[in-house]
Amino acid sequence: MQRTDVNTLGEFGLIDHLTRDFPLRQASSIKGIGDDAAVIDNGSLCTVISTDMLVEGIHFDLSYTPLKHLGFKAVVVNLSDIYAMNALPKQIVVSLAISNRFSVEALDELYEGIRAACEAYNVDLVGGDTTSSPKGMTISITAIGQCEKELLVYRSGAKPGDLICITGELGGAYLGLQILEREKYIWQENPELQPDFENQTYAVGRQLKPEARRDMIEEFRKIGLKPTSMIDISDGLASEVFHLCKQSMVGALIEESGVPINQEAQLLALKFKLDPITCALNGGEDYELLFTIRPEDIEKVKYLPDIYIAGEILEAKDGIKINTMGGNLHDLKAQGWVHF
Amino acid sequence: MQRTDVNTLGEFGLIDHLTRDFPLRQASSIKGIGDDAAVIDNGSLCTVISTDMLVEGIHFDLSYTPLKHLGFKAVVVNLSDIYAMNALPKQIVVSLAISNRFSVEALDELYEGIRAACEAYNVDLVGGDTTSSPKGMTISITAIGQCEKELLVYRSGAKPGDLICITGELGGAYLGLQILEREKYIWQENPELQPDFENQTYAVGRQLKPEARRDMIEEFRKIGLKPTSMIDISDGLASEVFHLCKQSMVGALIEESGVPINQEAQLLALKFKLDPITCALNGGEDYELLFTIRPEDIEKVKYLPDIYIAGEILEAKDGIKINTMGGNLHDLKAQGWVHF
Repeated sequence: MQRTDVNTLGEFGLIDHLTRDFPLRQASSIKGIGDDAAVIDNGSLCTVISTDMLVEGIHFDLSYTPLKHLGFKAVVVNLSDIYAMNALPKQIVVSLAISNRFSVEALDELYEGIRAACEAYNVDLVGGDTTSSPKGMTISITAIGQCEKELLVYRSGAKPGDLICITGELGGAYLGLQILEREKYIWQENPELQPDFENQTYAVGRQLKPEARRDMIEEFRKIGLKPTSMIDISDGLASEVFHLCKQSMVGALIEESGVPINQEAQLLALKFKLDPITCALNGGEDYELLFTIRPEDIEKVKYLPDIYIAGEILEAKDGIKINTMGGNLHDLKAQGWVHF
Repeated sequence: MQRTDVNTLGEFGLIDHLTRDFPLRQASSIKGIGDDAAVIDNGSLCTVISTDMLVEGIHFDLSYTPLKHLGFKAVVVNLSDIYAMNALPKQIVVSLAISNRFSVEALDELYEGIRAACEAYNVDLVGGDTTSSPKGMTISITAIGQCEKELLVYRSGAKPGDLICITGELGGAYLGLQILEREKYIWQENPELQPDFENQTYAVGRQLKPEARRDMIEEFRKIGLKPTSMIDISDGLASEVFHLCKQSMVGALIEESGVPINQEAQLLALKFKLDPITCALNGGEDYELLFTIRPEDIEKVKYLPDIYIAGEILEAKDGIKINTMGGNLHDLKAQGWVHF
């Protein structure tokens, strides 16, 4: 029998492959696989569902991740997907597999973080499953949101001429991870040294305790703005631009000068001998929103804090390009996160 | 710092402990933790959500579980929880963490089973997450169902005088597991021997490829029967009777003579030197439904195939008892499944 390594397909290729033959039969299944969340029609309000699985040793390293932060982050990354549909998260279910290395007190810490996220984002924990695991910890969270059908924003709605917007500065979470990994390495070499975060609490905080942009979705509603398409930036800006263009069947031009990079992240990047723009384009886990608007909606966006215009949607035939600060036009490359 | 082993609380104790301080804030959260599924109000139809996590080495053993059957079963156990709310499952999301030991072909087998279950139960796969794991396979499935609010059946509605009903024969899945474990042991001792299932395909089939009682829920609707309470039998009849009594704040009298045991399971139990009634009471994974009805509804149930009357609901002060075939009245004991 043939044996194809999953690495040959990559994460998104594997998902496409495994789910290629699942037709939607239920009239209530408005949106299946392929967006930030699935959408289910209930007659009046739609239910929006997103799920994420976090595995110890792959998505988190407990040697530098406090369990409370892990619980908070595990919830936030799911809520971010619901907001990316322009929907409001209302409930979560949390499943947890743990080895006997974890004590009740350790799990209390984790749930303290889950509770803090539920309070901060006003969502209810309504179910879950708790089980043992032969090794390590796995957390699976499903977030459930609500939205009026006409307010839903998919990845697929961008049109040529639309402006590409980003809700905040990028690169911080990725550089926070570099600091944490460096300190772990130093600590492993010499366990007597204490970690030195050099007051770089911004980047470490972006990595350990990200926030989802609930405020932006609430602002959009307040000012009557409906983006034409939207996705959350979990795998890196470039990767998300590709997803959005693929689903919308369009091209894009990103202006390097319009990509917001946090200043601390920029300095850190240079210290780590990394290219700041590469960190902003390909570093993941910032959980900002990438969205597109009709050109005439620039008037509405102008007065919002924290919105950066990073480019324009093109025809599909024009490809996906980046205009560098040096004035060169390149094809955009998405490295994203590769878990396999 | 204190270190309390999770074993001191047990599975349900741990869940109670971790989730004790999560108030429901959303008006749409009709039912949170504590039933087969959570219930969310959408104005017209309610959304019913249930989630389960299956971990290799804890819930399944790939040395005797074909991946296709595993995929099928992983879906079915979740659908069973939705049916146990008297709701109809419509969608699932599937998250999967896998080590690089699994090939694309192996995952295709797994998804073949998931697809077969989606077809058999008419549900749509609408999302999920696929990621790598340092070791083994973990599957987390969330099932989403719909139900009119007035048709929902909770664990908490049983009243003294109600009759206790079971939808089918018990013990088969547990004895199927005994056969599979025995054959694995023999095979480990002598890898040249082929497994001998002695034509006991019923029990092995109940273990490897269980079915959820969609037919019963559809029958209930056809004949206009609404159970007063319901739960699915995943951890063993005795354990589920305790859950139902706890949530309904009632006692129960189970008639041993009324507990349906499959004949093949009965013979197998004797062969394994196990007490057949203990297998039926405490063996899990049969995925039949345990439900209660008002005494006057006996007329409706009488004409349904496959329904067994196994006892009566009592006042809480009367406790939870079993009347043995020998005519002795004992306290019922729930061993259930202990994963920790």
